[in-house]
Amino acid sequence: MADSEALSSHAGDPVAVEALLQAVFGIVVGEAIQKGTSASEKVCEWKEPEELKKLLDLELRSQGESQEQILDRCRAVIRYSVKTGHPRFFNQLFSGLDPHALAGRIITESLNTSQYTYEIAPVFVLMEEEVLRKLRALVGWSSGDGIFCPGGSISNMYAVNLARYQRYPDCKQRGLRTLPPLALFTSKECHYSIQKGAAFLGLGTDSVRVVKADERGRMVPEDLERQISMAEAEGAVPFLVSATSGTTVLGAFDPLEAIADVCQRHGLWLHVDAAWGGSVLLSQTHRHLLDGIQRADSVAWNPHKLLAAGLQCSALLLQDTSNLLKRCHGAQASYLFQQDKFYDVELDTGDKVVQCGRRVDCLKLWLMWKAQGSQGLELRIDQAFALARYLVEEMKKREGFELVMEPEFVNVCFWFVPPSLRGKQDSPDYHKRLSKVAPVLKERMVKEGSMMIGYQPHGTRGNFFRVVVANPALTCADIDFLLNELERLGQDL
Amino acid sequence: MADSEALSSHAGDPVAVEALLQAVFGIVVGEAIQKGTSASEKVCEWKEPEELKKLLDLELRSQGESQEQILDRCRAVIRYSVKTGHPRFFNQLFSGLDPHALAGRIITESLNTSQYTYEIAPVFVLMEEEVLRKLRALVGWSSGDGIFCPGGSISNMYAVNLARYQRYPDCKQRGLRTLPPLALFTSKECHYSIQKGAAFLGLGTDSVRVVKADERGRMVPEDLERQISMAEAEGAVPFLVSATSGTTVLGAFDPLEAIADVCQRHGLWLHVDAAWGGSVLLSQTHRHLLDGIQRADSVAWNPHKLLAAGLQCSALLLQDTSNLLKRCHGAQASYLFQQDKFYDVELDTGDKVVQCGRRVDCLKLWLMWKAQGSQGLELRIDQAFALARYLVEEMKKREGFELVMEPEFVNVCFWFVPPSLRGKQDSPDYHKRLSKVAPVLKERMVKEGSMMIGYQPHGTRGNFFRVVVANPALTCADIDFLLNELERLGQDL
Repeated sequence: MADSEALSSHAGDPVAVEALLQAVFGIVVGEAIQKGTSASEKVCEWKEPEELKKLLDLELRSQGESQEQILDRCRAVIRYSVKTGHPRFFNQLFSGLDPHALAGRIITESLNTSQYTYEIAPVFVLMEEEVLRKLRALVGWSSGDGIFCPGGSISNMYAVNLARYQRYPDCKQRGLRTLPPLALFTSKECHYSIQKGAAFLGLGTDSVRVVKADERGRMVPEDLERQISMAEAEGAVPFLVSATSGTTVLGAFDPLEAIADVCQRHGLWLHVDAAWGGSVLLSQTHRHLLDGIQRADSVAWNPHKLLAAGLQCSALLLQDTSNLLKRCHGAQASYLFQQDKFYDVELDTGDKVVQCGRRVDCLKLWLMWKAQGSQGLELRIDQAFALARYLVEEMKKREGFELVMEPEFVNVCFWFVPPSLRGKQDSPDYHKRLSKVAPVLKERMVKEGSMMIGYQPHGTRGNFFRVVVANPALTCADIDFLLNELERLGQDL
Repeated sequence: MADSEALSSHAGDPVAVEALLQAVFGIVVGEAIQKGTSASEKVCEWKEPEELKKLLDLELRSQGESQEQILDRCRAVIRYSVKTGHPRFFNQLFSGLDPHALAGRIITESLNTSQYTYEIAPVFVLMEEEVLRKLRALVGWSSGDGIFCPGGSISNMYAVNLARYQRYPDCKQRGLRTLPPLALFTSKECHYSIQKGAAFLGLGTDSVRVVKADERGRMVPEDLERQISMAEAEGAVPFLVSATSGTTVLGAFDPLEAIADVCQRHGLWLHVDAAWGGSVLLSQTHRHLLDGIQRADSVAWNPHKLLAAGLQCSALLLQDTSNLLKRCHGAQASYLFQQDKFYDVELDTGDKVVQCGRRVDCLKLWLMWKAQGSQGLELRIDQAFALARYLVEEMKKREGFELVMEPEFVNVCFWFVPPSLRGKQDSPDYHKRLSKVAPVLKERMVKEGSMMIGYQPHGTRGNFFRVVVANPALTCADIDFLLNELERLGQDL
């Protein structure tokens, strides 16, 4: 029997709901957006983990809290979070805050639907198709397929899974045990998701053959050819090459035409991981960096990176028109993909993915694109290249900045050489001492909250900074600040 | 050289940004939230795909659009989208609109960070840990591990990958080829992601041994035992059982104690797919349905379903304390997970997952929990059970509603028997004709926009409706409406 207390609605009163959301939205606009993108505010307010735990009072208890307490919690969450839209956040391959994309994200959240059927996502099924069509057109394809994935790593895994399924359709049912050993090829500069994907998909990391990169981080096609021969000589079956357009650290673009030639000769699936560099296709000036991409079988492209669409926005694009995606991933669940619906069930795209529920990731990109136009987005890309160039030229005018190399993209990699190490290149512990500089400066900048820049060791090179110039709000003044601030933070070292 | 046009900032003026976002927020509150949850408005406004394409004008062009056009586009997107927070949306395993969860989602979007390092997600690294700790405590574990995943399907895949890695750590490097054939076990009522996962992970769908379910949809432990013996006799190595707490269609709970006994006897990893039913653990009255879950090795639990936290919010919980998750999935990328950071790098949880960038999915749940308290959430669960019971009792009072079975959860499965078929159970084409009723009624309700209920065939049963009683805003009046509306829509059939 129904219990009367339990039967009463637990939804809030609509007036109170609106008041709560208005109050939260006011906090978001003031604290996260206005202060969060203002150069006069901190990019982060560092707290040690134990202190931050106390400040946040994270414990979940039996009793609920008052609206005033909840609003305080919203303020605290924003206050102690890193402001990735801030003009001094250079730390990752994403930054900036596009207001139209954010508007699209807020609408997405308020509608809270899943992208699997036309029935419950009519607008977004059609919109995703159109956005993917546009991205494919930029790659150079007039037809094809695609899907938004939860990040570039999963897009890359999809490509590997599709390539092996195309070659061995039986493996969906029978698994890998009955197959010969498979080999896939990528350069040593590739994203780590290729290794992770090979493990996850049951191929094992040994199946990844690492191809040499040149001194600028670009795959060497001759070594690819050699690795393919070696793998074949060892009895493995090559099936896929994953080239990278925009490597994570150096921002290098693999030579796609030459790699496509190799793939064509050997009948291999060409995947291009353009998660980072794909957005350069919007720029007439710079898209030559991806020449040959139209010869790929699949492309991973994350508009949440350089286009600032917001996490996550990650497209896998396919040249295939044989419904490979659905054949490879489909399971025909009868409770979701009924065949006796009153509309064309080809619109139920959910069986193209290995997920069931899938977030709507297209609206934020679509709305931003409608507002900016392709021309507006192109300007942003060109601006990012120009500012990266400005940064490089300004560095050359100053003492103490040593470029790792001339960048070909918007990743600017360099050592800050502090006063005590200048002119000491020949000293035996120079490189060891230099590699300790970036961690110290990073700690200082984060604790002051003045800016954030990533650093890493790389191959035989010790720690160097990687500034990513991606935020569309950046100006030369922000770049000047970055250089001055590094000098200030490092003057006593 | 830097080009002066390109070097100017393309960020909007802060006042215009705020005005845009205020206008969008006003539209969201009025159209998506107030109208979208009002019983006097439509749950959807059906348009044929071709007509909808025209209405939306989806094409992405070179030129950007004015703010007024953009706001019109926001209105259109909301207008033609399905209102999943509406009290007449019974179509999926999620529904309702929790204002605190939505507030958490809006803050998440405005902060736009990735969950991989403490450096850029200090608040959310600590918060995720605390939320996972709380969910584990409800499972019955005082320690363990876990992570938020992009949906239950991927949580289930993680469990399978972890189980095989635990047994064969070499497979991460060497792949499946060197292993014996593996077998995993799940019932025929399990979610289709188990099959999808087996294919994706390279095991192949043949590795999934389908265990019988009883007439109520619960796995039969004796048949599990039999299937394990059969697999072994065929030379396969059993390694995992995936039990389900809350099956997708019938809402059945597998008998976990008996299944855990079998797993213990055979040394198998016990995974519980509680994506749908996990939230029942919050109810003292109903949590007995999951008795034995504390004996699992892993649990998948989606608070975006019954708790209405918002897509996506999907936790994988582990009893493991040996860092299995990181050992299995980690790749130690040196540019992200530097070991010479100035804080405890154990806080960089990103290497626990196969993704790189990962959305923040904990804040919406945390904020809702803080506002409601565990007690408030418990009331919601109890209310959903009570309303499902109310629906069943009311059906029994009416002609024309035939239950598929007495539900044990909040999935209420039934046939609507229209007037022309009543009393014709013995007619040879009764079942064939009955199975055509649900698609017709579905089309009618969607085209009128009055409500949405899912239907499906199931095993030998023809199409029946599945009403999911999950929206915390539901009242008895909504249930009465549902019954009256089915009668109205089907009176001429």
